[in-house]
Amino acid sequence: MNAAMQTSDTTLVLNSRDARGVVTLTLNRPQAFNALSDALLAALQAELDALRDDRSARVVVIQGAGRAFCAGHDLKEMRAEPSLDKSGDLFARCSKVMLSLLALPQPVIAKVHGIATAAGCQLVAQCDLAVAAADARLAVSGINVGLFCSTPSVALARNVPRKVAMEMLLTGDFIDAQTARQWGLVNRVAAPENLDAEVDKLVQSILAKPAEAIAIGKAQFYRQIEMGIAAAYQLAGQSMACNFMDEAALEGVQAFIDKRPPAWRQA
Amino acid sequence: MNAAMQTSDTTLVLNSRDARGVVTLTLNRPQAFNALSDALLAALQAELDALRDDRSARVVVIQGAGRAFCAGHDLKEMRAEPSLDKSGDLFARCSKVMLSLLALPQPVIAKVHGIATAAGCQLVAQCDLAVAAADARLAVSGINVGLFCSTPSVALARNVPRKVAMEMLLTGDFIDAQTARQWGLVNRVAAPENLDAEVDKLVQSILAKPAEAIAIGKAQFYRQIEMGIAAAYQLAGQSMACNFMDEAALEGVQAFIDKRPPAWRQA
Amino acid sequence: MNAAMQTSDTTLVLNSRDARGVVTLTLNRPQAFNALSDALLAALQAELDALRDDRSARVVVIQGAGRAFCAGHDLKEMRAEPSLDKSGDLFARCSKVMLSLLALPQPVIAKVHGIATAAGCQLVAQCDLAVAAADARLAVSGINVGLFCSTPSVALARNVPRKVAMEMLLTGDFIDAQTARQWGLVNRVAAPENLDAEVDKLVQSILAKPAEAIAIGKAQFYRQIEMGIAAAYQLAGQSMACNFMDEAALEGVQAFIDKRPPAWRQA
Repeated sequence: MNAAMQTSDTTLVLNSRDARGVVTLTLNRPQAFNALSDALLAALQAELDALRDDRSARVVVIQGAGRAFCAGHDLKEMRAEPSLDKSGDLFARCSKVMLSLLALPQPVIAKVHGIATAAGCQLVAQCDLAVAAADARLAVSGINVGLFCSTPSVALARNVPRKVAMEMLLTGDFIDAQTARQWGLVNRVAAPENLDAEVDKLVQSILAKPAEAIAIGKAQFYRQIEMGIAAAYQLAGQSMACNFMDEAALEGVQAFIDKRPPAWRQA
Repeated sequence: MNAAMQTSDTTLVLNSRDARGVVTLTLNRPQAFNALSDALLAALQAELDALRDDRSARVVVIQGAGRAFCAGHDLKEMRAEPSLDKSGDLFARCSKVMLSLLALPQPVIAKVHGIATAAGCQLVAQCDLAVAAADARLAVSGINVGLFCSTPSVALARNVPRKVAMEMLLTGDFIDAQTARQWGLVNRVAAPENLDAEVDKLVQSILAKPAEAIAIGKAQFYRQIEMGIAAAYQLAGQSMACNFMDEAALEGVQAFIDKRPPAWRQA
Repeated sequence: MNAAMQTSDTTLVLNSRDARGVVTLTLNRPQAFNALSDALLAALQAELDALRDDRSARVVVIQGAGRAFCAGHDLKEMRAEPSLDKSGDLFARCSKVMLSLLALPQPVIAKVHGIATAAGCQLVAQCDLAVAAADARLAVSGINVGLFCSTPSVALARNVPRKVAMEMLLTGDFIDAQTARQWGLVNRVAAPENLDAEVDKLVQSILAKPAEAIAIGKAQFYRQIEMGIAAAYQLAGQSMACNFMDEAALEGVQAFIDKRPPAWRQA
């Protein structure tokens, strides 16, 4: 029995939804720089599970309350009663959260301010898109306390060149938002006061597209990227043919031919 | 029976060859921005099939006639009688063209001007090298009509970081030539009036090398890149040993030792 | 029987170790630009084998004596009595050296000056980290003598975007240190007179961390990067749980909680 399974503290991840179907999940342990405690991880997993079949949710934004995005795992909680089983279970639950981001039909955008360290940096890497405030800083800093950021390295190494990842992992040093952008770890950098607006540009662009096409496309993207190229093309071709037969695509293509805007019901 | 198999319209892809063995394939539906109709895909496939065993062809350049490189699939044709079978077949034929580029013994250079969208952007990504005019723009824009660019994502995600790919796929936005170069999607950017000359620099460099070494090297490159590193080294070592025993390599290495130019017959 | 197995020429790779446990391996055939002869490869393999279980060695730096880092294989030796078997054996021995770098528990830093060509460029790519002098130049130039750099392409294609790799492999052209850094092939560029100091910054950062955490982290990094993401997370989570139960990590995490420096014995 672990604590995470028993919690029902819904204040640890705040869920707000606007009229457009944009769901903002706010990691809400500001006093702990939103460290991913057992309870917070459980709350986040519960939110992601609920979103999986929620077709009215169109985009997910993940942000942190207070001064930071996320400072990684809760070291105090981990250290309280250390055991191989307990820590193995913790990393498994955290990895499940990360894989759940990939499995969501909605695009997930990390809105990064302050610091994103260790599993916090992993969260940025694992989201589909990320926008960072110009003064945000990112690090996989576990090595500074003797704990190599192995699970974060899974997401990081799939975002940036491997020598860049290794330098971050071995030194634990921060990189700034612009450097993160240079390597593809975040998509865009905005002045802090424009961070919301910059995220909303991506959100608006996504909202203007049919949800079904995005869901099909996102799912195949992460599957094909792990395949050999011939198998990848086979999967992608089947996926795209299904997408094409969807009502929204048929209308979108017809509208393009007719040189008129598509008559899409917004999901 | 599909239309593509029946066509013999050789004007859809113009094939010109110079005395050096440089084959230029020109996608030639300028009025449709060189959209990849069934017939054009079939013509392109036929050209690539013929090149596969043509040792007198040394380099292949792919370009578009008129104002664009290539605007992707022919949406009008796709929309005419939509069915899962027909569109699945279309994507399979397009993927075969893409995989045929990898399988060619000759290096293939995309010469990109105007726009390269959807499967047109995929074509750029799938070529071995690409040179873009400074005013060229690239997008995987299918999502704008409700059709996520899944097959283009296969090639794109193997060229650029995954968040960059996801942003392009989800927004459908254009990137300019310099941005494409920054992420490795094209190798070089040239002023429009220097595009031919810039491509020819790469061509000349390739022509100066033995065709057999390039064919062996290209084939192993795309095979090893999909393998674990130990298996990759095993394949690459065998490949390189074969290459070394080739007459041209033995002469090239001897010439290097003798500090003289190699006496290579140009293939 | 090959020559490499019989040699015991320990002057071909100089091994120096400082009081901190920093091992510097100097490729020492300066008159041949440190070309990887059979004997030099054997000497390098012997050094790497000895380091594998040497817990007092904390970081490995690889550099070249004289005016270059490394000019690749010894073409004169290869050309003397060319055979498929002998060259296959050579590439297998070279690949074993490369894979041994990955298998070392210590981080390996390439310190690059002058030129790094063919297997010399591969060596840079295969090290965990690399620092280059501003006037260093790198190339996979085998194609210039008719020998496509297939084994170097294994390491190169795992460092830089594939079109960048293909351009280097097909043209054989040099890139400068800044370009190498732009693509992630080297981590840092320093003025030639500051090269040692820049390497030492990385060394000092690594020395400040527990060796066991680094060894665990490095091993899982190269394993997980070849896996699908779900399997990668499973491996990384197990690895990180083991790391956490290590004495140094428990102390490091406790020290972090106590807001004091960790009381680590330096290995």
